[in-house]
Amino acid sequence: MRNIGILTSGGDSPGMNAAIRAVVRTGVFLGMDVFGIRRGYQGMIEGDIFKMKTTDVSNIIQRGGTILKTARSKEFMTDEGMAKAYDQLQIHGIEGLILIGGDGTFRGANKFFEKYTIPAVGLPGTIDKDLSGTDFTIGFDTAVNTAVEAIDKIRDTAEAHDRLFVVEVMGRDAGYIALNSGIACGAEDILIPEMVTDINDVLCRIDMDERRKKTVHILVVAEGDDYGGSKKVAETIMARFPKLDVRNCVLGHIQRGGAPSYADRVLASRLGHAAVTALNNGTTQVMAGIINGEVVYTPFSNVIKGTTPVSPDMLEMIRVLSV
Amino acid sequence: MRNIGILTSGGDSPGMNAAIRAVVRTGVFLGMDVFGIRRGYQGMIEGDIFKMKTTDVSNIIQRGGTILKTARSKEFMTDEGMAKAYDQLQIHGIEGLILIGGDGTFRGANKFFEKYTIPAVGLPGTIDKDLSGTDFTIGFDTAVNTAVEAIDKIRDTAEAHDRLFVVEVMGRDAGYIALNSGIACGAEDILIPEMVTDINDVLCRIDMDERRKKTVHILVVAEGDDYGGSKKVAETIMARFPKLDVRNCVLGHIQRGGAPSYADRVLASRLGHAAVTALNNGTTQVMAGIINGEVVYTPFSNVIKGTTPVSPDMLEMIRVLSV
Amino acid sequence: MRNIGILTSGGDSPGMNAAIRAVVRTGVFLGMDVFGIRRGYQGMIEGDIFKMKTTDVSNIIQRGGTILKTARSKEFMTDEGMAKAYDQLQIHGIEGLILIGGDGTFRGANKFFEKYTIPAVGLPGTIDKDLSGTDFTIGFDTAVNTAVEAIDKIRDTAEAHDRLFVVEVMGRDAGYIALNSGIACGAEDILIPEMVTDINDVLCRIDMDERRKKTVHILVVAEGDDYGGSKKVAETIMARFPKLDVRNCVLGHIQRGGAPSYADRVLASRLGHAAVTALNNGTTQVMAGIINGEVVYTPFSNVIKGTTPVSPDMLEMIRVLSV
Amino acid sequence: MRNIGILTSGGDSPGMNAAIRAVVRTGVFLGMDVFGIRRGYQGMIEGDIFKMKTTDVSNIIQRGGTILKTARSKEFMTDEGMAKAYDQLQIHGIEGLILIGGDGTFRGANKFFEKYTIPAVGLPGTIDKDLSGTDFTIGFDTAVNTAVEAIDKIRDTAEAHDRLFVVEVMGRDAGYIALNSGIACGAEDILIPEMVTDINDVLCRIDMDERRKKTVHILVVAEGDDYGGSKKVAETIMARFPKLDVRNCVLGHIQRGGAPSYADRVLASRLGHAAVTALNNGTTQVMAGIINGEVVYTPFSNVIKGTTPVSPDMLEMIRVLSV
Repeated sequence: MRNIGILTSGGDSPGMNAAIRAVVRTGVFLGMDVFGIRRGYQGMIEGDIFKMKTTDVSNIIQRGGTILKTARSKEFMTDEGMAKAYDQLQIHGIEGLILIGGDGTFRGANKFFEKYTIPAVGLPGTIDKDLSGTDFTIGFDTAVNTAVEAIDKIRDTAEAHDRLFVVEVMGRDAGYIALNSGIACGAEDILIPEMVTDINDVLCRIDMDERRKKTVHILVVAEGDDYGGSKKVAETIMARFPKLDVRNCVLGHIQRGGAPSYADRVLASRLGHAAVTALNNGTTQVMAGIINGEVVYTPFSNVIKGTTPVSPDMLEMIRVLSV
Repeated sequence: MRNIGILTSGGDSPGMNAAIRAVVRTGVFLGMDVFGIRRGYQGMIEGDIFKMKTTDVSNIIQRGGTILKTARSKEFMTDEGMAKAYDQLQIHGIEGLILIGGDGTFRGANKFFEKYTIPAVGLPGTIDKDLSGTDFTIGFDTAVNTAVEAIDKIRDTAEAHDRLFVVEVMGRDAGYIALNSGIACGAEDILIPEMVTDINDVLCRIDMDERRKKTVHILVVAEGDDYGGSKKVAETIMARFPKLDVRNCVLGHIQRGGAPSYADRVLASRLGHAAVTALNNGTTQVMAGIINGEVVYTPFSNVIKGTTPVSPDMLEMIRVLSV
Repeated sequence: MRNIGILTSGGDSPGMNAAIRAVVRTGVFLGMDVFGIRRGYQGMIEGDIFKMKTTDVSNIIQRGGTILKTARSKEFMTDEGMAKAYDQLQIHGIEGLILIGGDGTFRGANKFFEKYTIPAVGLPGTIDKDLSGTDFTIGFDTAVNTAVEAIDKIRDTAEAHDRLFVVEVMGRDAGYIALNSGIACGAEDILIPEMVTDINDVLCRIDMDERRKKTVHILVVAEGDDYGGSKKVAETIMARFPKLDVRNCVLGHIQRGGAPSYADRVLASRLGHAAVTALNNGTTQVMAGIINGEVVYTPFSNVIKGTTPVSPDMLEMIRVLSV
Repeated sequence: MRNIGILTSGGDSPGMNAAIRAVVRTGVFLGMDVFGIRRGYQGMIEGDIFKMKTTDVSNIIQRGGTILKTARSKEFMTDEGMAKAYDQLQIHGIEGLILIGGDGTFRGANKFFEKYTIPAVGLPGTIDKDLSGTDFTIGFDTAVNTAVEAIDKIRDTAEAHDRLFVVEVMGRDAGYIALNSGIACGAEDILIPEMVTDINDVLCRIDMDERRKKTVHILVVAEGDDYGGSKKVAETIMARFPKLDVRNCVLGHIQRGGAPSYADRVLASRLGHAAVTALNNGTTQVMAGIINGEVVYTPFSNVIKGTTPVSPDMLEMIRVLSV
């Protein structure tokens, strides 16, 4: 393969730049020309494409965001959009693609790859860790550490005032950030989409804690929790315990940025290196993931946005440890 | 003076523990017994008072929050409450007080000090830096650095998506956190309570930026801005620029916690040391502050919650530098 | 089991406190009395033992170090020392032990456990990740992130001055910290004990980089590298390339401290919880580790201080990515 | 003035990029062309000069190091070197210069400015804070915070092992980093160049602490301390107290890098903005500094590398607070 293109698509995540660096340098090492495609599939349609040198990716391994920018594209979902995108690949002589993003990035584009017979290898880039075919996604480790640092700060002021905080973390469909940041911060309760939230149980646990003179409570809530987000949880608690000093904090987009952790950088480097090597060897229409420490390739059609069931032991542990 | 008491009151701020440490150790060094009073004036009323050893303040200089906890007390505003509080001071033989907090902590209690002739020296502990009589307050430096780290992360994702972010920082009456974090993060606009917000000016600047193909915007808004907070600002921008990808982030209570910066630790140590020395030398009813690098004492009655006027040069600079 | 003891031994690592918290709270949840033994086996000999309450471990999950302190004990290696230690366990009615530390902590004490028939379960607490029976050790993730943050800072100044830095990280027998921090920081070369260092190869690579006008070099060296540490490496480079501006940095003990990462906190919580449950169920003389995401128990006699062979692919990747 | 040049010289410091950004954008705002001169005076001689656009300084305010790189130049000290440098300024039509660096950057080049009548305004960029004419230098605040974060980590492990650590921080001629990081970390002793070190006093204080059963000691030593650096201090302590577990840590170049603190970014922005405005208004051969919160201009000839005498109160406070 002579020329390959690389793009980032969907929500950005810390470590995407480390992956871009690995892809560009591995491609150049293998004698390829590597073309950066800006703003995902929309940039492909618009021909926002440039040849990347190894120096273009100098000193970016430690940067959050993505130097290729990311976007969602409705136009790409149409036949006309795909035709334009294909024309641009032809113009630049791009014979294969590396895609960094979530399930939509791979499966949403699969029709395009099949129609125009374009070899493509994907990398899991999302903070949510909600993809099958990999134990970790690029950005998850950093996002949880960011949430943990924020909740540690919130606990400082919670302890000073004897307050109850409801903290909302990212995770529209998956509770991994909530579960891991909650355990790591010693949260008194954790509400996640994978479990039906029984608000009476939550209130009951607060009540018991109050009777035991436990004065500080941190509840970590995934934004996709079925009860309706941290604001509604906080309001329900306030209504039930009018004497409690209850506050609601939505951590928000700080979880998407920041210098990636070592784990995300190493993961991104390994997968980026593996993906280009695989593409060069004729492996296509797969996502490169990491399972039990080894690189594994999963066909796009099997990469499902899904959540591993949370072990009941994990949740039991939370109750035990937050005593 | 033989026995002194120390309390923290009002909103907590990073560095309060460093101040407590300095007060206890200076007191002990001067041969005093130092009594910790938990939960501010409410704890004084309730007799939540304990003798502190130098080891009680070991290893707390780097901790956010306040080991003495803080609270607001309505009961202390009543004659009965004050009488109870005085009784508790008598019981413990406390002859003087060190108070860490904001203007309410000093001036709100002045009636009490005068009625019962209690010597007291205050320390400015608030993240808002909105007190006269000092150039810096304990916690401000840390809070701004926390806001800056968060906004840096937000910029990463804003750059990746070409988004406009409206970020709300703390500051109900003062815009110092907004002004300094905004300049430090290269914010495109900064809205503060000290300046009347002309929303049309704000929209106009966004419009000009858009025409110049500036794709990323960060607006930093103090929670006390007169236009009505970041949510309203974001909604107004969305209504005017429907094509822009606008997001709203409220940084919230993370700004109150975390390990204090060196500047807050040194400030707290110096003022804590100075306050006890002053109290021991008969100086009373004053707040110890820092002005032009030197410790200065200002009578409680002159410590006003106020804001220094923001120099127009500072605001002009923002426009120039965010080009 | 009614009463259990817990100790930390060997070099401290971030996350030990999270493990202590999990052990104490799980023990109390199961109806046990949990005794903290200070300063490892030496404290056991001296009877430095106290009953721990759940509140003793409040607010420590985020703290570096170990509240139980750690020490090495020569006396414990003697029959007299062991007899004294056993007497102390008898005095406190301690029927089982939880041990947090490295291979010496488990295997070094195995004779003691067997002689006096004391049930014991170990947790892998070491920043070096050099134990068989577990994929991760408590503290490793944090230590690598600390090294990465430090090397990122060093790269800033290296880029400003076009310098070559030789950075020494911890790892007397294992190169995992060096390998992972080196990849994560885009190091130009990484020297580890697992690979014989051919210094001429190192010099040759620098020479080639120089010819390619690469002006900045970061070499990450594990302290246990066979060539003799970073100082000798730096001196050899200086002798060979007198025009290069070469600096040597030894990161040192900062790698042992600091707030643990989420991964170390969750690992420590899971293993602490599992270890007490296992001990309660009669499992003994094993270390609880994590393999492929699941808790696994390995007999002490099989827990070997060893290093997994580093895959040649990993090292090849370094050369490719640092182009 | 139509065209100005900007360079960074001497040791790099965090915030230099924020200053470059402010200079470029203020220059462009005033209608100037701003030329970046790479690698200080050496790059000037070699004509390593390029016209900077406002976008060249996008997204650098938060970066450590200096995008213009820095270097020392012996050639510039010669008449020939100066002549070559002047030629380059002529070629690019550069009529005035902004210089970011230490005293050598301004005074060392003063001969050049006078000989060729080149208007120049300087900015204090050094982590050492050892310049007259300003209360703060760009980079100092960040460097102290970096040292403090490192020493906090070291204290974690010192507490775990009951060790004595001698920590060396930067400061060849000035002890400000040592003094401020030492106070902020609760150091038991602080050794700085401004005070003659009586090693017997140091040993005596350790002895007293030992008798009082104080088990942890942190000594912070400026690299320029007259007794001979941390290594010699540590060796002397070990010789005197063979039972103490003594370790030596040299923090080194991590203190030069990293994202600048808000204070350094705001300082750099204000001074950069002020310097260009001053140069444009005909003010020359001065360094822009900050004194008591206001921008002040000091003639180059009066900018002396010196140290403010350390108040004895400050040092007394250390002893009191580290009890």
